Amino acid sequence: MTEVIVLNGGSSSGKSGIVRCLQEVLPGPWLALGTDALVDAMPASMRASDAGIEFAPDGEVIVGPGFRTLEAAWIAGVAAMARAGARVVVDEVFLGGAESQRRWRRALDGVRVLWVGVRCDAAVAAGREVARGDRVVGMAASQADLVHRGVAYDLEVDTTHAEAMECARVIAARVG
Amino acid sequence: MTEVIVLNGGSSSGKSGIVRCLQEVLPGPWLALGTDALVDAMPASMRASDAGIEFAPDGEVIVGPGFRTLEAAWIAGVAAMARAGARVVVDEVFLGGAESQRRWRRALDGVRVLWVGVRCDAAVAAGREVARGDRVVGMAASQADLVHRGVAYDLEVDTTHAEAMECARVIAARVG
Amino acid sequence: MTEVIVLNGGSSSGKSGIVRCLQEVLPGPWLALGTDALVDAMPASMRASDAGIEFAPDGEVIVGPGFRTLEAAWIAGVAAMARAGARVVVDEVFLGGAESQRRWRRALDGVRVLWVGVRCDAAVAAGREVARGDRVVGMAASQADLVHRGVAYDLEVDTTHAEAMECARVIAARVG
Amino acid sequence: MTEVIVLNGGSSSGKSGIVRCLQEVLPGPWLALGTDALVDAMPASMRASDAGIEFAPDGEVIVGPGFRTLEAAWIAGVAAMARAGARVVVDEVFLGGAESQRRWRRALDGVRVLWVGVRCDAAVAAGREVARGDRVVGMAASQADLVHRGVAYDLEVDTTHAEAMECARVIAARVG
Repeated sequence: MTEVIVLNGGSSSGKSGIVRCLQEVLPGPWLALGTDALVDAMPASMRASDAGIEFAPDGEVIVGPGFRTLEAAWIAGVAAMARAGARVVVDEVFLGGAESQRRWRRALDGVRVLWVGVRCDAAVAAGREVARGDRVVGMAASQADLVHRGVAYDLEVDTTHAEAMECARVIAARVG
Repeated sequence: MTEVIVLNGGSSSGKSGIVRCLQEVLPGPWLALGTDALVDAMPASMRASDAGIEFAPDGEVIVGPGFRTLEAAWIAGVAAMARAGARVVVDEVFLGGAESQRRWRRALDGVRVLWVGVRCDAAVAAGREVARGDRVVGMAASQADLVHRGVAYDLEVDTTHAEAMECARVIAARVG
Repeated sequence: MTEVIVLNGGSSSGKSGIVRCLQEVLPGPWLALGTDALVDAMPASMRASDAGIEFAPDGEVIVGPGFRTLEAAWIAGVAAMARAGARVVVDEVFLGGAESQRRWRRALDGVRVLWVGVRCDAAVAAGREVARGDRVVGMAASQADLVHRGVAYDLEVDTTHAEAMECARVIAARVG
Repeated sequence: MTEVIVLNGGSSSGKSGIVRCLQEVLPGPWLALGTDALVDAMPASMRASDAGIEFAPDGEVIVGPGFRTLEAAWIAGVAAMARAGARVVVDEVFLGGAESQRRWRRALDGVRVLWVGVRCDAAVAAGREVARGDRVVGMAASQADLVHRGVAYDLEVDTTHAEAMECARVIAARVG
């Protein structure tokens, strides 16, 4: 039985929409926890500091050592939720590519995980970033390929031409 | 020169995304004012009362006489903004179809308006409603066709297979 | 009969809370329209440009000529809503002090207006700015006195020690 | 050294504001995780179902067995974050009073916790509920006393007459 689904994709690739559809179509309740939830939990002062997260004018996201420390504890906690019986969908932006996946893999040792790559054509994602209007412009384009470097998946979906609900159904069909 | 663009479409048809893209691609600044802005401006108590707006469990939206009174003044005000020199994109849900259009047409008398229909397949819109997670489920399906009944357009776009940015470019090309 | 209530105060002085309480305690429905609604209606690109609004790192807000043009049309439109029969509560930040009031006064010529100053001790407002967590830190302190310079009121309330609901009741008692 | 601060208080008692001020005034970064974050992580369908959370028209909040199962895993996960080195401020609504505290106490066994009661006069909290405008009216009044029944604190603050920042400083002074 799949205990955790990890979705990895760039900003504006459509992960959050897929997560909400998964919560609707999967049998039983699943918790949704991702990068956005972690960022919301951090102090406001870390969102614009060297120790925390920095959003460069071109959309590049730089995270400092303070962010990494809190993130490590966060990952350990999410893994503990799964071990305590909650099924969890994690939506992540692997800014460090393969190294980011290793961090999650270590924490989720012994937990059955479905690794899902969420792709979206960079130009399409950039257009959706403008359409949603709540993101630093440039993040979508700068992350579209970067986050998938060296990452291994059980399954990949592509939102360029597929709706969030379609992608969710494809993923749900693979959940044991 | 087009002074007002009125976009009409059902809930979750993708109007707001098109509006934000239009504000990005149109030359000069345009104000974006629509049904959501009006609802936000109304008293909280009107959002669940006979005099105001009611969201039925199946997603049907019923508006009362109190809503219509405030809406009439709102429409007059938006028209006045256009006459005072602001270019405005209005995104609307014509629950009353042709009669809703007449209300706007009367208020916008003498103003150059581009009327745009925003279509979306009902099933696709219903999936996007789940994906966004902030709407009463059922609104998308119940409004998909209803809002276009008897309404005349200069131009129609369909977000079923086209991105918000593509639709915005098509509309922008028609703006004088 | 009062047709428009204009509340003027600095950022984090508590205007929005008073507005929502006024909508609850005043007889009949009132529309709430203020600076935040105008900013939301503007293009995203104007929120960080010389032509639009700039939030300096110390919380100072600078508005450009593009902002002033749209604002003038907005004010004309809000006045038209009142003339068309809607009663309106406007919550404003008079960055230009007396000159800002003059702009509204001219537009509202012939409309019965109640002018209300919303004061809050600068240090208390600065603390509330941190507590709410969604504003550029420094705006509260930099605007606390600035916005009241040369402005004439029918009534002033002070949220330093009074709840939003108490202030709303005091204002409502003066509404004809 | 205090590893976790648990704030318990009714809806609209001002917990979230205190949490943001604590994140500002405490040395080092603290994660903020509370009931709102858990509710956001749950499926939309659980927010209005017998298995999840129900908001009665009078503001009473009823949680079902499905909620309790996810909550137990959530609590275990937050405790694991603290054990993994993150310092955490939890803001909670102990609908079950002493029994709710027992759940957290068991999960936090061996972790140094500061238990803080956040009080607010019921009538004042009800006014603030109207002022914030985003909560089911009635929750503040129905929870004001209920959530403190049988709960033991290291420290209590009262937001009726004290600002969030003042309360945060009092709490911070007790953090080892």
